Amino acid sequence: MGTITQNSKLKTQNLDDDPSVVAPTEAADLLSVKHNWDCPQPLPLECGTTLYGVQVAYETWGTLNAAGDNAIYICHALTGDAHAAGRYQPSDKKGGWWNPLIGPGRAFDTDRYFVVCANILGGCQGTTGPASLDPATGKPYGSRFPTVTVRDMVRLAYCLLRALGVTRLACVTGGSLGGMQTLEWLVSYPDFVATAIPIAASLAFSPQGIAFSLIGRQAIMLDPNWQGGDYYDAPARPDAGLAMARMVGMLSYQSDASMQRKFGRDRVDESEAAYYDPAARFQVENYLHYQGDTLVQRFDANSYLLLSRAMDLHDIGYQRGGIATAVALIAPATRTLVVGISSDLLFPTRLQRETVAAFHAAGRYARYYELESPWGHDAFLIEYDRLTPVISSFLSEGQK
Amino acid sequence: MGTITQNSKLKTQNLDDDPSVVAPTEAADLLSVKHNWDCPQPLPLECGTTLYGVQVAYETWGTLNAAGDNAIYICHALTGDAHAAGRYQPSDKKGGWWNPLIGPGRAFDTDRYFVVCANILGGCQGTTGPASLDPATGKPYGSRFPTVTVRDMVRLAYCLLRALGVTRLACVTGGSLGGMQTLEWLVSYPDFVATAIPIAASLAFSPQGIAFSLIGRQAIMLDPNWQGGDYYDAPARPDAGLAMARMVGMLSYQSDASMQRKFGRDRVDESEAAYYDPAARFQVENYLHYQGDTLVQRFDANSYLLLSRAMDLHDIGYQRGGIATAVALIAPATRTLVVGISSDLLFPTRLQRETVAAFHAAGRYARYYELESPWGHDAFLIEYDRLTPVISSFLSEGQK
Repeated sequence: MGTITQNSKLKTQNLDDDPSVVAPTEAADLLSVKHNWDCPQPLPLECGTTLYGVQVAYETWGTLNAAGDNAIYICHALTGDAHAAGRYQPSDKKGGWWNPLIGPGRAFDTDRYFVVCANILGGCQGTTGPASLDPATGKPYGSRFPTVTVRDMVRLAYCLLRALGVTRLACVTGGSLGGMQTLEWLVSYPDFVATAIPIAASLAFSPQGIAFSLIGRQAIMLDPNWQGGDYYDAPARPDAGLAMARMVGMLSYQSDASMQRKFGRDRVDESEAAYYDPAARFQVENYLHYQGDTLVQRFDANSYLLLSRAMDLHDIGYQRGGIATAVALIAPATRTLVVGISSDLLFPTRLQRETVAAFHAAGRYARYYELESPWGHDAFLIEYDRLTPVISSFLSEGQK
Repeated sequence: MGTITQNSKLKTQNLDDDPSVVAPTEAADLLSVKHNWDCPQPLPLECGTTLYGVQVAYETWGTLNAAGDNAIYICHALTGDAHAAGRYQPSDKKGGWWNPLIGPGRAFDTDRYFVVCANILGGCQGTTGPASLDPATGKPYGSRFPTVTVRDMVRLAYCLLRALGVTRLACVTGGSLGGMQTLEWLVSYPDFVATAIPIAASLAFSPQGIAFSLIGRQAIMLDPNWQGGDYYDAPARPDAGLAMARMVGMLSYQSDASMQRKFGRDRVDESEAAYYDPAARFQVENYLHYQGDTLVQRFDANSYLLLSRAMDLHDIGYQRGGIATAVALIAPATRTLVVGISSDLLFPTRLQRETVAAFHAAGRYARYYELESPWGHDAFLIEYDRLTPVISSFLSEGQK
């Protein structure tokens, strides 16, 4: 019973204890450098439009071997970026978003592998997206940026990797939208991928996932500052709408159990007067506001709209005769480790079980690992101690 | 695997097949009459404010016995109203929101019981709420309406029932916010209640539930037409915000399984061109838009804000020394049937299990029934064939 009273919360975390904040520098941490690549050719998109002058922001760690086949490609999630690992300077407060998994001796071992992460197409962290200048007009694309899909993201990343000299990926991996890309890699470029680790993802986005996406997008479009997407020259941006979209996202990334543990019914001001004040906040409200306000400082509302729609459109079976025939396009030699999270609200484990079943039905290699965790979808950014041995042993099996 | 492909959905429902729409008239359907009651005394609220001239809209079915102790009080949910059963005219397209459970020979048998349902305090369907005229100013309360709580709702309903001649409730029941009221009844007026059936509710609202509430409220307040709550004299109302709040609610009332069954990845326009059109809709999006647009026609945004906050504040242990001591205030003779729904996202069954455990720890009578259903929180408005025998037998045991 106690779990619904204030006193019985297992742990109260303040915002500084946010489990998604990476721990301080360790000896194995890498130094990171921002790179930019200009795609030399036009990029035809799945929707029929062609983008010109596409730029890609990326980072790499480790060294590519002579054969060009020891590369690992890291696919980031909705609001992620190319800075998956390391620090730009040793004094940086935080490392990359998957720093504990990438480095010498870590799960993705940079003593052995050449690790690459690029900001995805449509993003706002250095790769061409809605806030970029349209070469045809010299102004930001805004509402004129075309619909992009997970397949488009993968195609652009493939062009980058070829330009970097990669001949074959030892592994492709990522969580959430990154996991969608991972699965799409297997179908778009089957001979280019030796192993894949899609985490907390699915072969097609679920209607419940689409519903979460829709509500986030509605929030942005409800903000009068959105202006149909052409707000880059305006005095204000749709910050309130984007913050609210982030709140919706953060809700879907957690779980009943994780919120109970972190917040319970604690209030910011525990006085009786505040209890009846409509403007007073429970700690869970304060946390969501904080997350919303923080994202606004680093993300673009149009990219959020575009990338969340790309998640909705993700269906590896679309225009391929369905999921079964699409899975049959995966190379028989490729090994895939499908990771699900027991408490995932946004990608319930039935989706990863269905993924494995589809692989097996097509005679393709897939293994399922369920990460038992109370942290919901966010667990792939938290449970490093448990992910590390699973990933390491899966990759080292391929070496035998 | 098939469950994530379009073809494999178990059933595709269009909007007219919405399972929350009650079936056509049956012989047992009742005729309903709208009643209004003027509360003769001032109503002091938990927040310290006193309301004057409070009005209550209510309906009744069946006949109160001479002892005044055969009454059943039905507590409605967030956007519900007093019209729980029957039709105002036989030609009405729909019956009350719990019509299949209330009538001669039904679970709440009007041949035996006097059934009452009233619109809750703060609502917008005839009982005093933010859209009502403040007797002090002659204008709508708007932003000046005070915070109300579940305890305030129960207190006003108690006054009504006493005015109607009820001496004791044979049963009090309701789902969601109605279930919260049901549990509060047991603590506020322990000697007034013989049995209780709280459905899909909890002794205190969870932080995840508060997060859903917050996002719905943010949507309303983000709408420029909300105007801080004083929009009653303005040319436009915060319809877009209220519609979006409803979308958030509807998402939380369903489940991964129910959305998969009802919508899958079907689109309104299945053409390839529409696939890449940002304005085109998946069926699940269309459904949420429809639900949002529909609520706007019958509900007030300020009531939504107020009542969703009342859900957040629901904690039967608040100012009572905690949940355990509050539960000990329940009458030992009272029998309670706690109903949980297996797929409930908003009120996961751990909450109902904790409720039963708290009752047992205090030596109070509670029995748990878990409704196995794919329909999520909404199941209490759908699974009548399964609820009827459970409720009937629970109530008839009390007759022996």
